[in-house]
Amino acid sequence: MQTDLKYVMISLVCLFGECMSLEEPKFNPVRTEDARCIDWSKTPLVPAVVQEQSGAVLMLAYVSEEAFNLTISKGYAHYFSRSRNKLWLKGETSGNLQRVIEVRVDCDNDALLYIVSQEGSGACHTGEYTCFYRKVWEA
Amino acid sequence: MQTDLKYVMISLVCLFGECMSLEEPKFNPVRTEDARCIDWSKTPLVPAVVQEQSGAVLMLAYVSEEAFNLTISKGYAHYFSRSRNKLWLKGETSGNLQRVIEVRVDCDNDALLYIVSQEGSGACHTGEYTCFYRKVWEA
Repeated sequence: MQTDLKYVMISLVCLFGECMSLEEPKFNPVRTEDARCIDWSKTPLVPAVVQEQSGAVLMLAYVSEEAFNLTISKGYAHYFSRSRNKLWLKGETSGNLQRVIEVRVDCDNDALLYIVSQEGSGACHTGEYTCFYRKVWEA
Repeated sequence: MQTDLKYVMISLVCLFGECMSLEEPKFNPVRTEDARCIDWSKTPLVPAVVQEQSGAVLMLAYVSEEAFNLTISKGYAHYFSRSRNKLWLKGETSGNLQRVIEVRVDCDNDALLYIVSQEGSGACHTGEYTCFYRKVWEA
């Protein structure tokens, strides 16, 4: 009898926990005033520098307002592909998603910096880890 | 007499040294094949991510072919100002020059990465060290 009661209690706690986690948002963004600084009508596609926490610059991509909003609501980097003319979840097909840790905006409100955790084999479609794998000049 | 001779000798050595340094190139660029990958007719203004060796991303600016060539011939970052519609030596008035250590190009040949040594008080016209000083979102 006691074991049954314990089981019921545990089940209730688990069920309550599950309900709680369903009610809570999966991702809890902390958005500041600065997020509204970007004038999307003036700059519909804002270049975003994509950097790992280690410091490595992985790529440069373009962000539409929709891509920006999806990025901060989902926590994964979304861009706008100029060549394919469509919204793009980075890594949707390759699995090389970019979990976004932080977003910064520049002084002119026309460039973004995404600090990301790169998943999978890297950022570049060539198979290289970063898109900036070629040195063209050095001092 | 010995002191005079010593003075003359030192002067000659200094003069010779000065002549040598005038004859030698101020800067010796090492440019690879990849430098010719950028199609300036297709992309007249290429965005350049500007990063310090420490990893800090300082700014994003645009580079014309002339700005690119000046950068690698002078060793200091030149950009093209879209708002002022003119070529721009970064730090020309403020003194906050950027000595360029390395230039990288991305996989699509339409973005550059300048690894620089920031001189003066920083990269941003606001007085902040980096232009990306505002956090707009964090996970």
